[in-house]
Amino acid sequence: MAELHLLSPAGFQASGVHAGIKSTESPDVGLLICDGPATAAAAFTTNQVVSAAVTIGRRHIAAGKLRGVVVNSGNANACTGKQGERDAVRMCQLAANVASARPEQFLPSSTGIIGHLLPMRKLERGIVEAGQYLGNSREQALLFADAILTTDLKRKAAAVAIKIGKETVRLAGVCKGSGMIGPRLAVPHATMLAYLTTDAAITAPRLRKLLAEACELSFNAVTVDDHSSTNDTACVLASGLGAKIDSPKALQAFAAGLNEVCRSLAYQIAADGEGATKVVAITVEKARSDQDARLIARAIANSPLVKCAMHGNDPNWGRIVSAAGLTAAKFDPAKAVLALQGTVVFRKGQPVSFDAAAISKALNAPEVQVKLACNLGKASATCYTCDLSKEYVSINADYHT
Amino acid sequence: MAELHLLSPAGFQASGVHAGIKSTESPDVGLLICDGPATAAAAFTTNQVVSAAVTIGRRHIAAGKLRGVVVNSGNANACTGKQGERDAVRMCQLAANVASARPEQFLPSSTGIIGHLLPMRKLERGIVEAGQYLGNSREQALLFADAILTTDLKRKAAAVAIKIGKETVRLAGVCKGSGMIGPRLAVPHATMLAYLTTDAAITAPRLRKLLAEACELSFNAVTVDDHSSTNDTACVLASGLGAKIDSPKALQAFAAGLNEVCRSLAYQIAADGEGATKVVAITVEKARSDQDARLIARAIANSPLVKCAMHGNDPNWGRIVSAAGLTAAKFDPAKAVLALQGTVVFRKGQPVSFDAAAISKALNAPEVQVKLACNLGKASATCYTCDLSKEYVSINADYHT
Repeated sequence: MAELHLLSPAGFQASGVHAGIKSTESPDVGLLICDGPATAAAAFTTNQVVSAAVTIGRRHIAAGKLRGVVVNSGNANACTGKQGERDAVRMCQLAANVASARPEQFLPSSTGIIGHLLPMRKLERGIVEAGQYLGNSREQALLFADAILTTDLKRKAAAVAIKIGKETVRLAGVCKGSGMIGPRLAVPHATMLAYLTTDAAITAPRLRKLLAEACELSFNAVTVDDHSSTNDTACVLASGLGAKIDSPKALQAFAAGLNEVCRSLAYQIAADGEGATKVVAITVEKARSDQDARLIARAIANSPLVKCAMHGNDPNWGRIVSAAGLTAAKFDPAKAVLALQGTVVFRKGQPVSFDAAAISKALNAPEVQVKLACNLGKASATCYTCDLSKEYVSINADYHT
Repeated sequence: MAELHLLSPAGFQASGVHAGIKSTESPDVGLLICDGPATAAAAFTTNQVVSAAVTIGRRHIAAGKLRGVVVNSGNANACTGKQGERDAVRMCQLAANVASARPEQFLPSSTGIIGHLLPMRKLERGIVEAGQYLGNSREQALLFADAILTTDLKRKAAAVAIKIGKETVRLAGVCKGSGMIGPRLAVPHATMLAYLTTDAAITAPRLRKLLAEACELSFNAVTVDDHSSTNDTACVLASGLGAKIDSPKALQAFAAGLNEVCRSLAYQIAADGEGATKVVAITVEKARSDQDARLIARAIANSPLVKCAMHGNDPNWGRIVSAAGLTAAKFDPAKAVLALQGTVVFRKGQPVSFDAAAISKALNAPEVQVKLACNLGKASATCYTCDLSKEYVSINADYHT
C-alpha cells in the first residue's frame, strides 16, 4: 500500500499556495475541501483572548457539518476587533465560492503574528488561486501541510488505516506548532493547528466525543512554552464515504486510530519545538488521580530548569523531583521513584548512587524518557516537551513586532 | 547617619566564613546571632518536597523565639532523608554552642545542589570558625550576606530607619536568589533565603502576621523561573532592644518599613535573576479581585515568550495580552488597555498605532514597566521578573549534577 497522506481518505481535495503573507517563499494559504458535506468536530483554545478565526470557527462548527477549511499562516488575525471577524467571514465566503457551498460550511484558521489586520488583497487572491490548484495527490497534501507552518522547521503529518470488519477506513492528519505551544483544547477548544481527514461514516456527536478524548492524550499533553495560543484549533472532517463507525468494536478501533494519529502529530510538535534538540517524554505513574498525574507531568515539562538540564544532558533529578512537589497534586518524595532513560536516580526520599557520566551520555538522545512513579494510586499520564536551548531565546528575542 | 546594614539594629552579631562547600573562594557558612532571645517569625516554601533544613526550621520556629540563624550555601540538604535531618539538627547544635543557647533556638538553612548529603566535617569546622569571627561591624554583615549566595552575581541587602513617635527602630535584611525563583511562601512557609533583623519590640503573633503580609507584596511577587524551591525561607528576628511596636500607628509604620525592605530585597532578586539583563515590573490594575490581579501579573511574568521579547527589546504586546488570557482570572481583551514604558500599545481589543522603534529603544532599559488595566474592577498587583537570555540557558544547561 502506498504511503498514506491527508488526501488518502476518500472524498477530499486540498491545495497550498504562496500569497506573500509570510516573508518566506513557502505556501501561506491552504484550502482543504470535502467533496460533499463532511461530519465535523473541532476543538479550540481555552484562552480568553481568541483570534477572530476562532470566534467565527466556533459558530460555523456548531452544525456539525463542514465542507472544508480555509487557512492562512503569517498573520493570526487576533486582537483585530470587528474588522478581524469580518475578514474571517470573507475568507469563508471566498472558500465557499470555490466549493459552491455556503460560507458557514467553512472553518477559517489563521496563525502568525498577533495584532495586525489580515492583508486581505493578498489573501483574497491567494484563496482564489488555491481554488484553481485543488486536487487529491500527495503533492497537494504536502502543499497544504506546508501552508499552515510558521516557525516550524518540519512538516508534520500522520496517518493510519483502520480495519473495521472487512472494510478499511483511512484517517490522516497534518498539524503545525513550534512556539506558543501549551494547548488546552476544549471541545467546542491550540497556535497549534491540526486538521484531520477520514472517510469514516460517523455521527457528529460521536466524532466530537472521540476528538475530545484524543486531544487530552495528545495536543493537550504537549507543551513547548505552556502558552495556550489565541488560535489553537484541531478539526476533524469525516467524508462518510467509507465504513460505518457505529458498533462498540468499530468505535474502539476508530478511537485507537484517532488517538494514535493525534499522539503522533503532538509528538512531532514537541520534536519541532522552537530551538528543540530533543523530545522529553515525561510519564507520571501511580498517581492518585488522572488529574494529579497530568498536573505533575505538566509541571515537570514546563520547568525551564528541567528543560535546560535536559539540553545540557544533566541528570539533575533534584529539579525534576522539586518540580513535582510544586503543584496542587498530591506528591510525597518519600514514596516516589524517578528513572531517567530507564535508570533509577531517586528512590523514596533519597538519592541512589548512579554513574552520572553514563546517564549523561544516555540523555544525549533524540528522545529522553523521564518516568516518575508516585506510588500513591493507579493513575498515569504522559506529557511531551522539548529541551530549552539558546536557539529558543534567539528565535523569540529576535522575532520582530 | 551612617549607612544601615544587617547589624545596625541593636542586639545582633554575625559572621561569614569559607568552609570549602562552594567551589568558589567566597564565604559559604554564615552565623547570625541575637544577644538574647529574639522574637522570631519565618515563612517557608509551599513545595511538597522540602529540605531537611526546612523540616527542622519549622519545628524550631514554632515557639516564636530564636537566638539566631545558621546557614550554608553550596548544598541544599534536600532529598537527603533522615540523615539530612540529623545534619540540620547538628548545625543547630554547633551554632547553639557558640551562643550558649539550645539547638532548638536556631533556624538552620541550606542552599545549593539538591540530593547530596552535607559535607559535615567541612561544615562543622566552618560553624566553629564562624563563631570565632562574630561581630556587629558592616564588614561582618557583608560576609554573612555573601555566605548565603549561590549563582547570585550580586549581594542583596536593604534597610530602613522607622520613626515610632520620638524613637527610631531599625529594620534591615539580606537575601539570596537568582535561579529556582518563584517563591510561594506561607507563614509557618522560598531557594530564596531572606533574613531580617530589627531592634523593635514586638510580639511573635504580630511579627508573624506582618511578615505574611510583607511576603505577599515582595518575595511571593517575584519570579525568575516560577520554580518554588525546596528550601525557600524568610525569617525576621526582633531583638526587642528598641521601641515598642504595639499601637496601631506604630504597627502601621513598622509594617510600611517591613514591606519596603522586603520589596527592595525581592526586586534585587529579580534584577539578579540568572542571565538577567533587566527587571520587568508587571502591574495589573483594575482587576476583579486581588487574586485575579496576581494570577494575571504572574502569568505574564512567567511567559518565556514575553521574557524573550523583553530581552530583545521587542514591543510584542500580543504575547502579553494572550498570556493575560491564559489564567482562571477574568480577563476581557475588549476592555483591557496595555502600556509599555508608559506608551499605550493596545486599547480595548485593538492595536494602537505606535512608533515601534521608539518603544523598542525605551525597552532597552534596566527596568521595563508593563502596565495592564483590566477595567473589570478595582484590584491591583505588581509582579517582578527578569528577561530570558541565552545566558540563562548556559547557566542552567551547564550546571553539573
